[in-house]
Parts: sequence; C-alpha cells; structure tokens
Amino acid sequence: MRLVSFSSSQIPRAHLGILHNDEVLDVDLAGRALGLDVPDQVLTLIEDYDRYLPALQTLMEKAQSRSFREVKTFSEIGAAHTLNEVRLAAPIPRPRKNIYCLAVNYKAHAEETASQRDHKGQTPDIPVFFTKSPTSVNDPYGEIELDPQVSSELDWEVELGVIIGKRGKNIPEAEALSYVFGYTVLNDVTARDLQKRHKQFFKGKSLDGSCPMGPCIVTADEIADPHNLNLSLRINGETKQDGNTKMMIFNIKRAISVLSQGMTLEPGDILATGTPSGVGFTRVPPEFLQEGDVMESEVEGIGVLRNLVVAVKR
Amino acid sequence: MRLVSFSSSQIPRAHLGILHNDEVLDVDLAGRALGLDVPDQVLTLIEDYDRYLPALQTLMEKAQSRSFREVKTFSEIGAAHTLNEVRLAAPIPRPRKNIYCLAVNYKAHAEETASQRDHKGQTPDIPVFFTKSPTSVNDPYGEIELDPQVSSELDWEVELGVIIGKRGKNIPEAEALSYVFGYTVLNDVTARDLQKRHKQFFKGKSLDGSCPMGPCIVTADEIADPHNLNLSLRINGETKQDGNTKMMIFNIKRAISVLSQGMTLEPGDILATGTPSGVGFTRVPPEFLQEGDVMESEVEGIGVLRNLVVAVKR
Repeated sequence: MRLVSFSSSQIPRAHLGILHNDEVLDVDLAGRALGLDVPDQVLTLIEDYDRYLPALQTLMEKAQSRSFREVKTFSEIGAAHTLNEVRLAAPIPRPRKNIYCLAVNYKAHAEETASQRDHKGQTPDIPVFFTKSPTSVNDPYGEIELDPQVSSELDWEVELGVIIGKRGKNIPEAEALSYVFGYTVLNDVTARDLQKRHKQFFKGKSLDGSCPMGPCIVTADEIADPHNLNLSLRINGETKQDGNTKMMIFNIKRAISVLSQGMTLEPGDILATGTPSGVGFTRVPPEFLQEGDVMESEVEGIGVLRNLVVAVKR
Repeated sequence: MRLVSFSSSQIPRAHLGILHNDEVLDVDLAGRALGLDVPDQVLTLIEDYDRYLPALQTLMEKAQSRSFREVKTFSEIGAAHTLNEVRLAAPIPRPRKNIYCLAVNYKAHAEETASQRDHKGQTPDIPVFFTKSPTSVNDPYGEIELDPQVSSELDWEVELGVIIGKRGKNIPEAEALSYVFGYTVLNDVTARDLQKRHKQFFKGKSLDGSCPMGPCIVTADEIADPHNLNLSLRINGETKQDGNTKMMIFNIKRAISVLSQGMTLEPGDILATGTPSGVGFTRVPPEFLQEGDVMESEVEGIGVLRNLVVAVKR
C-alpha cells in the first residue's frame, strides 16, 4: 500500500490518504461512509497497524482493478481525488522526534568527502548517527528556502528513508527488518558551511525545510528488496547522484540493530540511510543549490520529490 | 512560579502541578473547582502562557502566605499534596523533539577534555550543538540503567536547562532572553565509549533514561540572573563538579540566537547549556557510574535531581 498525507481545499489539515494510480483516497471520509474503524493520521495508522489494516484492505478491495473515482460510494462523498486536486505533505508531516540519519554510508561518498573531512576516505567500521529537527521536514513538492544570511552552501543528499513500525530496543539484526513499517524518499539537504563550522552535524542539517520527504510511504510488503533500489538526484534535469541501495556500507538491519542498542525505537520513527556519491560540495568546482534550481530526488519504486529553490526575502 | 509534572495514585498520568514550599497543587483539579480555564499539561501551559497565567496567579493568591493544604477549597477536593505523596516526572515528560545540547561550553571542561578529543583545549569560536532523543528523558528521581552490553562508561554532566517559551527564528541576541520560558536542571548522562566510537555525539548521548530532568521548571521571572547560578554534581555525596553558569563560554542569548539562525525554535523546546569541569572520563584514573551510585545534580535556585544507578538484568 502507498500512504500519503494530503490536504485539500475542503480539508486544509494534512491527513491520511491511500495513493493508487495517481489517485488519492481520503481514508477518513471513505472509511466512515462504510462504517469502518479508520485513522485520520499516518502516525495513528503506524502506531496501530494491525487494528486498522483490515479496514484499509476493505477500502482497496472496493476499488479492485478500477480507479477510486469509479467507486460510486467514494465519488459521491468526494473521497476520491486526482493527485492534482490535492496538496501532498510529507507522509509524516510532523515526526514526534528528530529524524535519525546515517552519516557516510556509501563507499563512493566516503571517498569523495575524504579530502574535506578527517575520516580519510576509509570505510567506517560502525554506523555514525546524527539527527535532523522535525522543523526541517518539508513537503515532497515544497520550496527549499535559500537565505544567504544563514548559509550559502546548501547541498543535496538523496536518501532512502526507513519508517519504523514497532517499538523495540536492543533489536537483533535477524529481527530488525520486522520493525520496518515502510520506505520513503527523503533529501537530507545540508548547509555545508554550517556543518563544517559547527563540527557536530545537527545545526547544518536542520534548517527549516531541509528535509523534503515523500511523496508516499510504501509499506514494507511491497518492497521486495530494499537493498536493490536505484536512487538518483537531478538538478534542473541533470543527473548529479546515481546510485543503488545495494552500495550501502551498513545495511538497514545492521543500522536498526546498532541504533536500538540501549535506545528504544518507536513507531513512526524515521531513519535516513545515507546518500550515494555525487553531492555538490566535493565537485570541482563545488556546486550548491541556487535560486530557481529544481531539485528532483528519486528512489525506484517509491517516487520523486520535486523541490524548487527560492530566495528568502528579509 | 515553580512548575512540575506529577502523578499520584489517583491520577497515574503525569500532569501539571505548581510546586510551593514542598507542596504540589494539582492545577487541573484546583482550577476546575474554581471555574478557571487551566491546562492539564506543562507543554499546553507553555504554548499558551499568556492565556493561562491569570488562572495560575489566582490559584497562587488563594494560598497567599499559607500552604495549599490550608486552603479549604483545595484540601477538600484532594488537589493539594505533600511532595512525598506524589511522583515527579520530568517537568516536560515527553518533549516534542530532541533536546538541543551545547557541546563544550565551559572553559575548564574544554581543557579537561582536550587530550581525549581533537579540539586541543582551545575555546571554540562558535557554539557546537548536538541532540538527545526524547526517549532519553528521565524523572528527576528516576533510576539510571547500566547495561554493560551497551556501555560500560556512563558519565555525568550536570547542566542548566533552558525552556523556550515562544516560537522564533533568526532571533537577535538582544531579544533572545525574551524567548526563555524558564529554567530547569538536567544531567546530560553520556556513554563515553559510544560517544567516541560513533564520532557524532547523538548515539552516546541518547540511551534510554540518560536525561534526568527537573525537579521543576522555574519561570524566567524568578531567576534574577541565569548567568550567576552555582551548579554541582555529587556521586554518593562526594562533589565531582562544582561550577557556576557565569563560566559559560557562550551565554544563553548567544546560544539561542545562533541556534535559531534558519531554524525555528518552538515553545517547549529544551536547550541544555553545557557542563562545567569535573566529568568522570577525564579523571585519572577515569571514573564512571557504577551500580548503586547515587548521582545528585544541583542548580542553585532550581533544585536537585537524585538518581540511583541500577544494573539491567537481561
């Protein structure tokens, strides 16, 4: 299943939808019309998935091979929308804690950043984690603000995002994938000047809007192998990053297992799994996001984020 | 005013109380008895302080110079408790994002950690920020769990905690203190082995229970000068840290101003302002928390945290 958070002219607060063939079904509206017990928010769904899954399956079955709009019950109450009738928010518009992020987790990215950092390009022997603030979350098609008084070195990092579905601590590697609810695309937009100046990554990683995410969460059952997904990034149509999740240094189960040692993971937690090579600051000459740039971040089988870079007026 | 989150045998969910002379007034219960518009949670109060302050002042005035229990309205409905009748939680039991923390922010601490880090003891020229997970929050008198399979190097860091009261971004230094709601005591308990091994501080700073906080929030109007408060840490009664907030390298307004550049601060956000010298891992020989240790963290004018270290059984 593909899950989104969306708003519309009728319902301005972002709420849960099912995405299917470029249509979005309003789960709350459709579910209530059928007398089903449904959640209104993606986080509520993730926290109680076993309870709500049958109702969501009933909604999907109603549509079967047809589109949501062809189901009379849905169209009559205005629960079925085309994608261009709605505004997509990040699938989890407001996470309940910071987003966990893996630093250097692709070998070629470790090598390209070596000259700028102290790790000398060697592959790290343990996952390195930092976080991005919930206030950094941005819509999948939201604008990225460029404020030269804050940073003049905004850079891109396309990443596979992992959504945690179950509470757990000290999770063994062998069980770790059973804690995954689903996957999303995210871009760990980074202010390189701040990242370098502040040493610890948090500040340079947490500017407002610096974490576009979405366009949907694909539930884990629909991703055959999360370690064989192409991921790419384009600026104004030109490919800058082009990798595959099989190139990860630490795979998802290892990352979850290590992260959860002594620290409880919770449903709705988000883990960004690192970026492949091709970021801007290691290019010669360095490249950074400029006003008017269109940044597209894609992960195979999930979707594309499309973000316009705009200048902040103060 | 001194604000706490507390639970009791009658109301097991932590909720807002006013602390006054070793008594806790149940704000919800007392307020409703008087027909006042009161919040039930500290976060709700912080988010809408101007709205709720008159009601809280009315409750305080009822007691005047007397104790809460001597006010008949309060005692009859069971709204007034002695401190030993209740269990204190962290004043914000579940922050809505990670806790912002200042790394090295006391000169003597910069010097004592120099040999272990790459900063060579020089005073940093810009505040360095990292975060602690909301799952690390612990009660002011809660137990600290020691799990040798996770870390054998748990260390102490007493700190002044700043609670943000207003939403703001790009906050000028001159206005920064007007964004402070109040102050609390916290201990940034750190797994030194994990901090070192994972390079970025997040993982070693975020073990479950590694952020005892409280016992109360003292509102900003009652702290004459947040940069002249003694803070100290004792292990089993022996003083290990003994400093004063005037020794901070970056004062609170500077830290808030820099932190808010390009990143929105929100009501209820928590900023830990760094620890003075005297931590365990730089001692010769190094000292770490052991099973049975009682750790006391004190900031003048706010209170004392008292945490017993217990071994985890697996």
